[in-house]
Amino acid sequence: MNKNLVFNVTGRLMRVMALILLLPMLVSLIYREKSFFAFLIVSIFSFGLGLILTTVTKKFTKTIYAKDGFVIVSLAWVVVSIIGALPFYVSGEVPSLIDAIFESASGFSTTGASVIEDVEVLSHGILFWRSFTHWIGGMGVLVFMIAFVSSITDRSIHILRAEMPGPIVGKITPRSKDTSKVLYLIYIVLTFVQIVLLWCGDMNLFESIVHTFGTAGTGGFGVKGDSIASYSSYSQWVITIFMFIFGINFNIFYLWILKRFKAALSSSEFWCYFSIVAVSIVLISFNISGLYPNISETVRTASFQVVSIISTTGYTTANFDLWPTFSKSLILLLMFLGACAGATAGGLKISRVMLIFKVISKEFRRLIHPRSVSSVKLEGKEVDETTSRSVTTYLSLYIICILVIFLILSFVEPFDFETNFTAAVTCFNNVGPGFAGVGPASNFAMYSGFSKLVLSFAMLLGRLEIFPLLIAVIPSTWKKK
Amino acid sequence: MNKNLVFNVTGRLMRVMALILLLPMLVSLIYREKSFFAFLIVSIFSFGLGLILTTVTKKFTKTIYAKDGFVIVSLAWVVVSIIGALPFYVSGEVPSLIDAIFESASGFSTTGASVIEDVEVLSHGILFWRSFTHWIGGMGVLVFMIAFVSSITDRSIHILRAEMPGPIVGKITPRSKDTSKVLYLIYIVLTFVQIVLLWCGDMNLFESIVHTFGTAGTGGFGVKGDSIASYSSYSQWVITIFMFIFGINFNIFYLWILKRFKAALSSSEFWCYFSIVAVSIVLISFNISGLYPNISETVRTASFQVVSIISTTGYTTANFDLWPTFSKSLILLLMFLGACAGATAGGLKISRVMLIFKVISKEFRRLIHPRSVSSVKLEGKEVDETTSRSVTTYLSLYIICILVIFLILSFVEPFDFETNFTAAVTCFNNVGPGFAGVGPASNFAMYSGFSKLVLSFAMLLGRLEIFPLLIAVIPSTWKKK
Repeated sequence: MNKNLVFNVTGRLMRVMALILLLPMLVSLIYREKSFFAFLIVSIFSFGLGLILTTVTKKFTKTIYAKDGFVIVSLAWVVVSIIGALPFYVSGEVPSLIDAIFESASGFSTTGASVIEDVEVLSHGILFWRSFTHWIGGMGVLVFMIAFVSSITDRSIHILRAEMPGPIVGKITPRSKDTSKVLYLIYIVLTFVQIVLLWCGDMNLFESIVHTFGTAGTGGFGVKGDSIASYSSYSQWVITIFMFIFGINFNIFYLWILKRFKAALSSSEFWCYFSIVAVSIVLISFNISGLYPNISETVRTASFQVVSIISTTGYTTANFDLWPTFSKSLILLLMFLGACAGATAGGLKISRVMLIFKVISKEFRRLIHPRSVSSVKLEGKEVDETTSRSVTTYLSLYIICILVIFLILSFVEPFDFETNFTAAVTCFNNVGPGFAGVGPASNFAMYSGFSKLVLSFAMLLGRLEIFPLLIAVIPSTWKKK
Repeated sequence: MNKNLVFNVTGRLMRVMALILLLPMLVSLIYREKSFFAFLIVSIFSFGLGLILTTVTKKFTKTIYAKDGFVIVSLAWVVVSIIGALPFYVSGEVPSLIDAIFESASGFSTTGASVIEDVEVLSHGILFWRSFTHWIGGMGVLVFMIAFVSSITDRSIHILRAEMPGPIVGKITPRSKDTSKVLYLIYIVLTFVQIVLLWCGDMNLFESIVHTFGTAGTGGFGVKGDSIASYSSYSQWVITIFMFIFGINFNIFYLWILKRFKAALSSSEFWCYFSIVAVSIVLISFNISGLYPNISETVRTASFQVVSIISTTGYTTANFDLWPTFSKSLILLLMFLGACAGATAGGLKISRVMLIFKVISKEFRRLIHPRSVSSVKLEGKEVDETTSRSVTTYLSLYIICILVIFLILSFVEPFDFETNFTAAVTCFNNVGPGFAGVGPASNFAMYSGFSKLVLSFAMLLGRLEIFPLLIAVIPSTWKKK
């Protein structure tokens, strides 16, 4: 492994983190809060440590291999989660370091699960930082660094591929510095539009920004104990629409910019996403109609929750844990599903699930006509054998990961089946709320420190789609050749 | 499709069923019960209908293709389940036809889930028939027919392959008439030994026979409301050991007969099965130690439940629904796992899970060294690409099936998440008891008729490992070329 390069990139990332931390520091300054000093200290610390690391590892060859890419991405996300946790802890607003790490990992992985019992007492700087981690984590910390700061290596593709979610079948995946930059610019424009739209409603500028970050990254951290429930129906609809938008494959926006409208409209993943959302809203509206006073509230509530869960955002306007079993089951399925690949959402991703169905249908054809040769197509393109094969392998590993996390939780925690199972599911899929003890009305505070670390790891594991993080912790990866 | 052959085989199977029904009729005669007439009527009906079918479809070509094999097997299991249901219904002991079909499908699929509120009032003939369906279903109805009655076609392999569970990687799978005969003889000998051993304990001959059938088929129907709990610890241990034995791949016994002891002992699937059972017993004994008066009872209870669930038998001596979450989670995992391929057990099968892990590990190697070529080995043999690819595809379809069944249940039933989910899991994996509303202390009587039919289909779907039954219901299968 190219250790010098790996640690050099980590060092540079720390210096970038030091810069990023200046933004929440500014917010703390505006509101004249003590948390200002926390951001200042952590920023200096991060810059200093980064400088030392880059100096020590000055000499390295620029060539990296797939393995190095996985290690760089894994290390980056662990380091970013730890540095991101420090302001919470140093400011004293989150008294436990483990809690701070959980909150930070939940932020960067865009999960939005929280261990903070009362978010309404936090300072503006800390609330801003909490949501900003979603925004950064949504598109990827290294994608950000490569797009705007430094190109690192001549084969950044290994890093970008490891950080971008979804099976690689899209038309344009951000493999070069330029495409990553364009995708980030789309991200910034959409963010700006949402802030303005929310600000036109009953949210003040600060709330508009914080909730937009939470939406854009499909994270879910807010500023109120009841998430979005106490805001106007206008704000709820704006957030619903933008949660849906941030669940769309960004390549589609890119195609719009290139004026390739026909290509943009022909995305079968988009239409599948759209149909699943529409059908789920209709089914759930029908199922929960007795619980809400009128149709408009029923549909708004169903829409908000469906889009929030499928986009793996995790904002809520209703306690869906109290819904009938059918609606809960559908919500649970949506947690697994996730939105489109190439978006900021977590979960399995729709294109992957579509591929799985196509691979299964190919298997049927093979069993009925053993000698026939058929191929799997997605978005009009033939999917190569390796990709179509690895998609069901990924699902198998995905199931195993959730089961192992669930088993660990149920071994160390006294909570019931539904709580532990949905805790594992919701963290691993980067959603946020689960059912029962971790339902929308509760949080993860009651878990032990050990379980919080396990869940933090689960969130990063889910965000990076398992392989990078597991490859990074295999001892053989670190051995010299 | 070779329709004439398909229906001819079905007709012949009905005539075989007519013969099989004479056995419970004999039991009814011995106990001088009214159910005698039910068996007589159904036997005559089955023979008559079978005769008509075989006469009508006299002319057929003997050649069949893979597709025909799937249809024959599917149709056979549906027909057998319906004919098997008739004695319950005609005797009046199960007043609802849907309930009778559920009970029969549960029997043949070796699930052991019941809708009968009080089994202790049933007649001996009916109780015998209930358990005997397990015994027949365990090894397979068509395997039985091919081994002892008629060879049907020159390519029986298509039928045997569709009926025998597990991924095809074993050393000897029963592909010919001769091997099926040997495997059935092993089955008969083991059954005989267990009957004798149980008879030596506190069970009478009738109870010994019925419980042995339930064990051999890894089914789980008994004669008492509390399953095996009220029998002596000797009987419990005998059943535990035989549940374990009937979970072993029968090829191993075959190798013993051939005196290839080294080959028999080197089965990695067996040692994996053994280890999982041992580790689970230790972990659960530790976890539930506070609930039972002494170590011997704790270990016996843990052993019985672990072996019963992993072998997908479903007999119980304790209400594991009241155990701590960790033990319940482990039990749930064992429900999915199942025992060895080539045994009478349901579930995913251990060799398939081993293959999945090997395929995942191969994917890791591919990601780290993209250009390397590596193969997957099981039991010392290289597994061909098609088999290793289809194993993860199978898992994906398996998960989808369980989710769809669960979703249907939660749409039509008012029960909680845990009840509906474990009902789907336990029926599909042919285990029997689940948690909560379908726990060891309850049964499936509270489900609606529609759900009972869905669950009956789920049990057959799980027993035949999905593909045959789904291929048989695809309309294109029935179209003329």
